[in-house]
Amino acid sequence: MSSVHGGLAGVSALAFEPLELGRLDGVRVAFVALPSGESMAIMPELRERVPTVIDLGGDFRLPNGDLFRTFYKKEHSTPSLLGHVPYGLPELFRQSLHGASLVSNPGCYPTAAILALAPALRAGIISPTGIAVTALSGVSGAGRSSDEALSFSEMNENVRAYRIGTHQHVPEIETVLERVAMTRVSVSFVPHIIPVTRGIYCTVHAPLTGNVSTDDARDLYRSAYRGEPFVRIRESVPELAHVSHTNFCDIFVASDPRSGQLIVISAIDNLVKGAAGQAIQNMNILLGIPEVTGLL
Amino acid sequence: MSSVHGGLAGVSALAFEPLELGRLDGVRVAFVALPSGESMAIMPELRERVPTVIDLGGDFRLPNGDLFRTFYKKEHSTPSLLGHVPYGLPELFRQSLHGASLVSNPGCYPTAAILALAPALRAGIISPTGIAVTALSGVSGAGRSSDEALSFSEMNENVRAYRIGTHQHVPEIETVLERVAMTRVSVSFVPHIIPVTRGIYCTVHAPLTGNVSTDDARDLYRSAYRGEPFVRIRESVPELAHVSHTNFCDIFVASDPRSGQLIVISAIDNLVKGAAGQAIQNMNILLGIPEVTGLL
Amino acid sequence: MSSVHGGLAGVSALAFEPLELGRLDGVRVAFVALPSGESMAIMPELRERVPTVIDLGGDFRLPNGDLFRTFYKKEHSTPSLLGHVPYGLPELFRQSLHGASLVSNPGCYPTAAILALAPALRAGIISPTGIAVTALSGVSGAGRSSDEALSFSEMNENVRAYRIGTHQHVPEIETVLERVAMTRVSVSFVPHIIPVTRGIYCTVHAPLTGNVSTDDARDLYRSAYRGEPFVRIRESVPELAHVSHTNFCDIFVASDPRSGQLIVISAIDNLVKGAAGQAIQNMNILLGIPEVTGLL
Amino acid sequence: MSSVHGGLAGVSALAFEPLELGRLDGVRVAFVALPSGESMAIMPELRERVPTVIDLGGDFRLPNGDLFRTFYKKEHSTPSLLGHVPYGLPELFRQSLHGASLVSNPGCYPTAAILALAPALRAGIISPTGIAVTALSGVSGAGRSSDEALSFSEMNENVRAYRIGTHQHVPEIETVLERVAMTRVSVSFVPHIIPVTRGIYCTVHAPLTGNVSTDDARDLYRSAYRGEPFVRIRESVPELAHVSHTNFCDIFVASDPRSGQLIVISAIDNLVKGAAGQAIQNMNILLGIPEVTGLL
Repeated sequence: MSSVHGGLAGVSALAFEPLELGRLDGVRVAFVALPSGESMAIMPELRERVPTVIDLGGDFRLPNGDLFRTFYKKEHSTPSLLGHVPYGLPELFRQSLHGASLVSNPGCYPTAAILALAPALRAGIISPTGIAVTALSGVSGAGRSSDEALSFSEMNENVRAYRIGTHQHVPEIETVLERVAMTRVSVSFVPHIIPVTRGIYCTVHAPLTGNVSTDDARDLYRSAYRGEPFVRIRESVPELAHVSHTNFCDIFVASDPRSGQLIVISAIDNLVKGAAGQAIQNMNILLGIPEVTGLL
Repeated sequence: MSSVHGGLAGVSALAFEPLELGRLDGVRVAFVALPSGESMAIMPELRERVPTVIDLGGDFRLPNGDLFRTFYKKEHSTPSLLGHVPYGLPELFRQSLHGASLVSNPGCYPTAAILALAPALRAGIISPTGIAVTALSGVSGAGRSSDEALSFSEMNENVRAYRIGTHQHVPEIETVLERVAMTRVSVSFVPHIIPVTRGIYCTVHAPLTGNVSTDDARDLYRSAYRGEPFVRIRESVPELAHVSHTNFCDIFVASDPRSGQLIVISAIDNLVKGAAGQAIQNMNILLGIPEVTGLL
Repeated sequence: MSSVHGGLAGVSALAFEPLELGRLDGVRVAFVALPSGESMAIMPELRERVPTVIDLGGDFRLPNGDLFRTFYKKEHSTPSLLGHVPYGLPELFRQSLHGASLVSNPGCYPTAAILALAPALRAGIISPTGIAVTALSGVSGAGRSSDEALSFSEMNENVRAYRIGTHQHVPEIETVLERVAMTRVSVSFVPHIIPVTRGIYCTVHAPLTGNVSTDDARDLYRSAYRGEPFVRIRESVPELAHVSHTNFCDIFVASDPRSGQLIVISAIDNLVKGAAGQAIQNMNILLGIPEVTGLL
Repeated sequence: MSSVHGGLAGVSALAFEPLELGRLDGVRVAFVALPSGESMAIMPELRERVPTVIDLGGDFRLPNGDLFRTFYKKEHSTPSLLGHVPYGLPELFRQSLHGASLVSNPGCYPTAAILALAPALRAGIISPTGIAVTALSGVSGAGRSSDEALSFSEMNENVRAYRIGTHQHVPEIETVLERVAMTRVSVSFVPHIIPVTRGIYCTVHAPLTGNVSTDDARDLYRSAYRGEPFVRIRESVPELAHVSHTNFCDIFVASDPRSGQLIVISAIDNLVKGAAGQAIQNMNILLGIPEVTGLL
């Protein structure tokens, strides 16, 4: 492993091996981290062999095959499963995770955006349409890549929006929020890549449905996430560096009465709460061990 | 000068000198780059001595003393001037600049935000309310600073929103756009500081008033800025690096029919089109020389 | 503490308090992290109250008051102590640390430079003079600072050498290496600040005294650091990122027969092996608990 | 061209075209910027068609085919030319450039290292052996690349030395300096890649042959480069940012009597003085027009 992750030399004796499903019997938990569209192919056999599976890709996050086809540009191989795999965002769906054998780990942008919007939508203080989500991602969000556009020389002193209106995380954000809001939700989502390695910084403007003070909004969010070990409602504006290398999602909320908008900002480490850390959090829940094990 | 800007050693023989208004007789053009609230104090005498003055600060950008007091937290010394100083955004107000003796150079965020929104507002394809502006600024936007929060160690691998709803550029953006839209305009504005030295990247979500295709929106913008030497309507998403060290404002526009929003992205170099470059562009206009002199 | 280190919100209930020596009775271990010249003032009383003290500053690293005066530009208050405080570089001086009540924690540059040079000097394969040390430091090496020269805008896309020939780490490196080499050692040391937050990358050219192959040199270093939990002799060139956030010192050694020089490269995280991590390693030794406790 | 360099949209109507030597008749000057080993193949025909050729690659920089084979791992196709192509470092070899039809433009590291060492070697104040050159390069030195190791995520917060003792610039530096010193020169050269986009920062330690003060050394360098438009002898330590986007080579020299070494630091923009800018400087000389045309 240290030939790929040089920092692990002398730390880990683990090795990368080619995937052979037949060798997995006896494995208790499997984390699947395959490119989109590849986990659905192995999932039926994998689930027969491994009792607890956490899929970090996007194959099982959308509720139906039509949305999958539209946004992933592929036909789903087991569309009947869609809508039946628990969505592994514990802060909203912890109950549905207990006892599950397969969990779909959320995308990085959706983790940040959904946690930012859920309390306000559920309480009805913002409109479910007209929501603007502007999200900034570190370059590691694209994976380890040899894409010239992601080279240091291209990204340093640069910013670039991408996949405006077509990102596969749009339907994930909307359909999950619809379950929370119990109504149709529409989000305008513009992702950006910025010159940091790690992190998602998500800034939301959402139309207030009435007069809500910043204090009231903050109380609502504190209430919604009371007792959550990995959500911090901040009184000062979040900083990406405050969540770096942690499983925290920091959230800030403010009412802007001038414009009639609620401003919500959330920050996570895309590689931790936005991927591997949340997968471990989900594993802890599935195995019935303390949720913060290995994370705090 | 090279003791402050080491790169200018051997290039420039200019020197910084204390300001003495009495020594300015015979000067043809003055660029005023003072902290907010300081240029209004010297402006009456300065204008008597220098026929053409371009003020890069915020003292003369707002239309009245009330807004100035609210957002700059100061009383204006010559409120009667407010509303009568031409706003030096040539792409929108070139006519009003000819023959002016004092011009107020726009702020960096307003330059990017106003150029992004003006064509759509004027044409009425977006609503004048419910507009969300998320803007990213390089650290140089704060000036040369010894603020610990802007040190490399604090800003690298970091992002931070700030002054949400209270930034002094909010009323500048709104009141200028109101002149364009001929109606009340309300903008929700969230500025961010990101780890780049130079640049403003401005992402706008604005509610469409009807069905407008991306092609139609792009044609509208091309039309609006036809012949403008420093605005480029791009077909691909702008990159900060493409405008770095230039006086260009790159603009991208796309319709997102799913969410009913118009997405507009603009990018400038905050130190050039957002400050010194635009000041030179204004000087060129005021002096009646080719507008691109020294800039292209 | 979270008002200073925002990332610790909800993680730590510790608070910063003004130093009152009188309140320290009962404290078992004290880490002193004061600006140079300030720890010597409190050390006599502190040692009476606290049985185990680790000083992270430079006050007790040099062997005599003359060197201290020359390089720290101050008179030492207790010069008689100098030369009698164990130097907390466990890989070279572990024996002298057992049972000590005060340990001087090495500087960040000296940790990297001394570990890079000690095996070759002790074995006599390099000359003790003519040694060139070029070291690169992350900006955090200057501490949390409001120095304009360390602002993001000044440091991004920049590199700057500093304190050439006068850095207070020069005599620390030389005098410690003299104890290892049992002869006079002379090092030409040029520190640089580069645009990374964390890390020391130290590149050494040292004149070979005879023919030594890269393989032989590498074997010598492997031997010298056999069993050391925090030194890794690498076969590929070290990367700063491989030691970031760890207590490792990665070392690479190569013989350049063309130029007759031994090239040694060492990399550490200046805040961990170069400061706090090494202090914990020292504490573990002083307390007689496993040396890697809390570090691996 | 703007599809490759997006910043040039609307600025340049130039287009990239496949190379067809047959179409070059009438061209007055050709800049050849091909990967190593490719320009030698076209050079005979190219020189027949174009009167002035500047080769930015390494094919004609070394004095003989043996060194070329050893360091470029290729057989040279026209070894008889080697040693007869003027080396385009005007500060040292301006006379040999006048009237030349082919010039070999220096490498980026050699430009910085040779300008740093030439005056001291020529004057004999340093030894021609035992010279340690530690050089830092921005990532653009590797060209526009899709190498994963050069991605932003890998390079940010990272430093990495490479090609220790085997870099093809070693014999270029040594053989050019030998012409200056009139004796055999041996350099230990360790190049590093650091997280900046542009720039070479070159730190040299060289053994003094006698007592030389910093003032004397600085006078020697001032004398050596008197009248040179692109060399600045600095009194403060150079900064990469001071030469960025310019054709300057900033040089700092200091004597370190403690270690008996002369310290020389040079800084250039690798893409300007280290490549394209120096090529234009050479063109200006070859065409007999003012040397600074287009550069200052």
